[in-house]
Amino acid sequence: MSSFTATHADEVAVATIRTLSVDVVGKANSGHPGAPMGMAPAAHVLFSRFVNANPKNSKWFNRDRFVLSNGHACALQYVLLHLLGYKLSMDDLKAFRQLDSKTPGHPEAGHTDGIEVTTGPLGQGFANAVGLAIAQAHLAAVYNKDGFDLINNYTYVFTGDGCLMEGVASEAASLGGHLQLGNLIAIYDDNHISIDGDTAVAFTENVEQRFLAYGWQVLHVDNGDTDYAAIYNAIAEARKEKNKPTLIRLRTTIGYGSKQQGTHGVHGAPLKADDIEALKSKFGFAPDQKFQVPQETYDLYSEFGKRGAALEAEWNSLLEAYGKKYPNEHAELTRRIAGKLPQGWEEKLPVYKPSDAAQASRKLSEIVLTAIIPSLPDLMGGSADLTGSNLTKVKGSVDFQPPSTGLGTYAGTYIRYGVREHAMGAIANGLSAYGAIIPFVATFLNFVSYASGAVRLSALSGHHVIWVATHDSIGLGEDGPTHQPVETAIALRATPNLAFWRPADGNETSAAYLVAMKSNKTPSVLSLSRQNLPNLEGSTIEKASRGGYVLHEETNEDLTIVSTGSEVSIAVEAAAKLKAEGIKTRIVSLPCWLTFDQQDEDYRLSVLRSGAPILSLEALSTAGWQKYSHEQFGLPAWGASGPYQKVYEKFGITGTNIAAVGKKVVEFYKAKGGEVVSPLVKAIHL
Amino acid sequence: MSSFTATHADEVAVATIRTLSVDVVGKANSGHPGAPMGMAPAAHVLFSRFVNANPKNSKWFNRDRFVLSNGHACALQYVLLHLLGYKLSMDDLKAFRQLDSKTPGHPEAGHTDGIEVTTGPLGQGFANAVGLAIAQAHLAAVYNKDGFDLINNYTYVFTGDGCLMEGVASEAASLGGHLQLGNLIAIYDDNHISIDGDTAVAFTENVEQRFLAYGWQVLHVDNGDTDYAAIYNAIAEARKEKNKPTLIRLRTTIGYGSKQQGTHGVHGAPLKADDIEALKSKFGFAPDQKFQVPQETYDLYSEFGKRGAALEAEWNSLLEAYGKKYPNEHAELTRRIAGKLPQGWEEKLPVYKPSDAAQASRKLSEIVLTAIIPSLPDLMGGSADLTGSNLTKVKGSVDFQPPSTGLGTYAGTYIRYGVREHAMGAIANGLSAYGAIIPFVATFLNFVSYASGAVRLSALSGHHVIWVATHDSIGLGEDGPTHQPVETAIALRATPNLAFWRPADGNETSAAYLVAMKSNKTPSVLSLSRQNLPNLEGSTIEKASRGGYVLHEETNEDLTIVSTGSEVSIAVEAAAKLKAEGIKTRIVSLPCWLTFDQQDEDYRLSVLRSGAPILSLEALSTAGWQKYSHEQFGLPAWGASGPYQKVYEKFGITGTNIAAVGKKVVEFYKAKGGEVVSPLVKAIHL
Ligand SMILES: [Ca+2]
Ligand SMILES: [Ca+2]
Repeated sequence: MSSFTATHADEVAVATIRTLSVDVVGKANSGHPGAPMGMAPAAHVLFSRFVNANPKNSKWFNRDRFVLSNGHACALQYVLLHLLGYKLSMDDLKAFRQLDSKTPGHPEAGHTDGIEVTTGPLGQGFANAVGLAIAQAHLAAVYNKDGFDLINNYTYVFTGDGCLMEGVASEAASLGGHLQLGNLIAIYDDNHISIDGDTAVAFTENVEQRFLAYGWQVLHVDNGDTDYAAIYNAIAEARKEKNKPTLIRLRTTIGYGSKQQGTHGVHGAPLKADDIEALKSKFGFAPDQKFQVPQETYDLYSEFGKRGAALEAEWNSLLEAYGKKYPNEHAELTRRIAGKLPQGWEEKLPVYKPSDAAQASRKLSEIVLTAIIPSLPDLMGGSADLTGSNLTKVKGSVDFQPPSTGLGTYAGTYIRYGVREHAMGAIANGLSAYGAIIPFVATFLNFVSYASGAVRLSALSGHHVIWVATHDSIGLGEDGPTHQPVETAIALRATPNLAFWRPADGNETSAAYLVAMKSNKTPSVLSLSRQNLPNLEGSTIEKASRGGYVLHEETNEDLTIVSTGSEVSIAVEAAAKLKAEGIKTRIVSLPCWLTFDQQDEDYRLSVLRSGAPILSLEALSTAGWQKYSHEQFGLPAWGASGPYQKVYEKFGITGTNIAAVGKKVVEFYKAKGGEVVSPLVKAIHL
Repeated sequence: MSSFTATHADEVAVATIRTLSVDVVGKANSGHPGAPMGMAPAAHVLFSRFVNANPKNSKWFNRDRFVLSNGHACALQYVLLHLLGYKLSMDDLKAFRQLDSKTPGHPEAGHTDGIEVTTGPLGQGFANAVGLAIAQAHLAAVYNKDGFDLINNYTYVFTGDGCLMEGVASEAASLGGHLQLGNLIAIYDDNHISIDGDTAVAFTENVEQRFLAYGWQVLHVDNGDTDYAAIYNAIAEARKEKNKPTLIRLRTTIGYGSKQQGTHGVHGAPLKADDIEALKSKFGFAPDQKFQVPQETYDLYSEFGKRGAALEAEWNSLLEAYGKKYPNEHAELTRRIAGKLPQGWEEKLPVYKPSDAAQASRKLSEIVLTAIIPSLPDLMGGSADLTGSNLTKVKGSVDFQPPSTGLGTYAGTYIRYGVREHAMGAIANGLSAYGAIIPFVATFLNFVSYASGAVRLSALSGHHVIWVATHDSIGLGEDGPTHQPVETAIALRATPNLAFWRPADGNETSAAYLVAMKSNKTPSVLSLSRQNLPNLEGSTIEKASRGGYVLHEETNEDLTIVSTGSEVSIAVEAAAKLKAEGIKTRIVSLPCWLTFDQQDEDYRLSVLRSGAPILSLEALSTAGWQKYSHEQFGLPAWGASGPYQKVYEKFGITGTNIAAVGKKVVEFYKAKGGEVVSPLVKAIHL
């Protein structure tokens, strides 16, 4: 790999990528041909000369990671995966953007062999790549030993103008520079075109200078269309820099080879038939044939597979030898790679009884983390500059920092994300995608929404990420409505495959962690209070682990109150007051809708049973609670700034007022007459 | 204002700001004293020497705008507003962070006199300021004439490290540099401290270099603690640069004067009693007295009010003279400043009949914009690099661009936001806050969530912003689940004071614009289809303007289907099939929940009436629909990539399947027996 001379086979391979991408988009009659055509040379040089990966085992742990941050260019990635020998057939390419194909409109991790992370929403892949690079640096620092350079892969990311305009990428780039991630190489497709046309209309900043400001090495290639040697040299130089991530600005022509090259006409629509024919003639292909791959190209790329298979075999031997010399580290690393939790970790989860002191659930979370982290090196935490409020840094933990800063080491497990919620979420997705790491990240619940783009992709991709989301209601008090979530909970609950937990006390907090840790294909958001919460009579880890349960039972009840988190104890208080008035009130705690919905129907109907009205109570928007209750009490609109008890009083979320509300509900349903049927009894179950 | 010499009064004023801020936070026993103490000199120099505003009329249109982007430092802003003579009394200061006070934990526009925009969520204020600066540049270009420099204010923004780490601020800074906003001056409180401690832990980029890369002028002041002249000179120099925004990096000591100065100990917690006493002694105040303001300081700041009142009077005369020379422009400008819409604009709204061609609602939106923009110069549009997909740029409209680019002018009304959704949302909030402008912004519905932080503050602050959110479901087809919203609609519907519209056809699209334009204290999100929708029998602008209405009536119905947007016509198709089977089905269209909820109870109960089951239908998450229906049909989880009709089929959202679902619902409720009561009949109404 010390120098580069382009061969005829290289030319043919690049032309094949270009024409095949055009055919893939053309057959679908939908998609983006321009960027694949422009980035074909970079993709070819990178994969043929540098990337170490085994297409026959796309999960080999020490593989180089490749991220296509400009995911709309995925025709390029699918074509490459096919040519390189991954499990993607020519028929799959022909089914591009068709229902239930392996080649959807944007790359989806877990769906298509060889796709590391789901991309398309701009900026996410770039930030994921920072996470992938952090993971490598961290695991290398923890497990590599003299003579055992076990974990030493690179992370390569392709990015377009769109990604670099997104704030999430800016945040990630700034942090990546701070962290001196020498294993991260971004290739920027500087084609001067975005959907609105020339980037001159909106994106005239000096990108090179910006990345220099972040502390990156910045290189450039003036002719990314045909100067393969320059591309090769830039990547080779990037790999030499061990203390900085590298951005290679690659000047390309979008849609290179098309009659419309260099215009946004080739960005997001198939090429016209005559253009495709002319393009193929120009590149030496039969103009009237589609999906042509010369054997020469398959042959060339078969070298990639051979190299990768050999490297994996070599690595497996190294790992075996490592196991002999370092049996404990080997056992731990292989356990982590397999995605298994250590035996008995859950026995460390704290258990509470009602006489234990009231504590904020953010504090209860800290107690859990303190208890489990010693047996779970997999956990890699961090906060978006709210460490002291989120209580996420346990005693004795070391910062993940470049050693030269003197502030920590790469073996450290606590990431200082800075005030960068969106990048934090996307980086955590990257950490999870790398494997062997379970990331937890933290901010106020209200600011999880700054990271919505990343949280959504976490759920879609099934990343095992845990959000510690504190200050989760008006209970944060004085900071006021700008910081008090109202709509956040329902937004997260409505996101498929996302477990939103709002524990009410110590046992429920332990349960939330128990289920979150075990759900390795589901991100979890733990919604935690700033204020103290009493430990409840009737809560257990086991019961709460079902997502919802009867905290306080009554036979022939007049009312059930269903609640979560900090309001459950208020419901208990209301129930006591109602009891004094002869109104029998059950209490259901429902800390996690997703988990509760996964229980069998009999159980669910036993918790939220027919026979008496069910009233929901939560110091948030009532939106969505109609699914589990007949009546809803919550915030009518925004919160307010003030000492938290006064804010609760202002909105009537007190034992006294909820008792009055409950009484009104009971009377209303008595007056209404007829059977009161559980809201879970439905004709339609999706 | 040509040079600066610090007087004794200046020293006293700065000391007063510092000690008063400390007392304000101390009495509340909650808040952030450090930044107010550090930024006191900059605040003093800026307001005493540069800011033109009238505290007796905080809405004077040509006032300089001031934004405290690091809103947690609001003790500083409240102290200033009090000293400068705004409607904020000493008692208000003493009620800092107390319930229902004028001095909440973070500044709220519309709540406290003199607050331009709501800040606290980091980065938002910085981006708002870019919007405020765009507004000035635009209105100046449109209305200023030779001899009538009517609109020439500056926008000043204070920002801390936190804001500059946020992606939303990065996006806004890049666009602000591109737009060459010479009227924008940001003062960066470079105090090396954030909540996690020294910024060295996470924020080591070269901020000056980054802003140079964005095209800003960058200045710095090495001693922001005591070198008032340097602060003065920097601001004066910033004002001279007409073609670039300016960042002044001001090196300060957080909590200057405290025993803990320069540490994060003074960031977010009150000072200790002995520290406060020592501080006051040091600054020449009585150590044991609180809330001290020397008369000398009130006197000094009374000059601010006098200057402002005189400037406003002068400006009013200028405006009057302008009216004589340019009566049409004067009439239009004063109408716009008053926030009134022009007479008869709504008559331009297109009206459709069922025989009109089916069109995508994004196209119907374009038709509305094309129809109304000629009579509504107030509208200033833009898209996050999806112009051709959002269809937001109407024929003949000119780009808002620096004239030197040759791509447009500052009089242009179309902003090329680039791929910067979050900044776009926050900039739009700034445009709205400036006044005389009604911004509309655009992206795919799924990517509105990238801007959640800004959208939430838009609703909290009551900004008149319209989001054109196209490609609003699986109906976008091939782009797949990464782009298909599922949870977005309920997140927006659960946000208080946010009108989420999902129109079903041409008349409903016109209705959405009608209500959105008239709701000048409510942001609206218009959720629009990529695919064609037929014009419906029974829809009218008037009916749809109520947020929900009976599209198709039946007496003694067996079923009501309630639906929105692209699924209403599918419901109509299902109803026809059910009719053929003898099942009478009403159709309710419910394009806007917020608007429907504002109708009187009788009306609402007539639309969603008792007597037969109500089934909701939407190609999104069903979360929240339980409020309006007994049964829900929608997406069980994520969407899928493929031609859109096939995706609809995959999820059973077709006339045939919905007819089957409806039949099942009818049979279920027949079997269940008993009265079917409207879901709107409730004991509790919040
Ligand atoms: Ca581009
Ligand atoms: Ca700071």
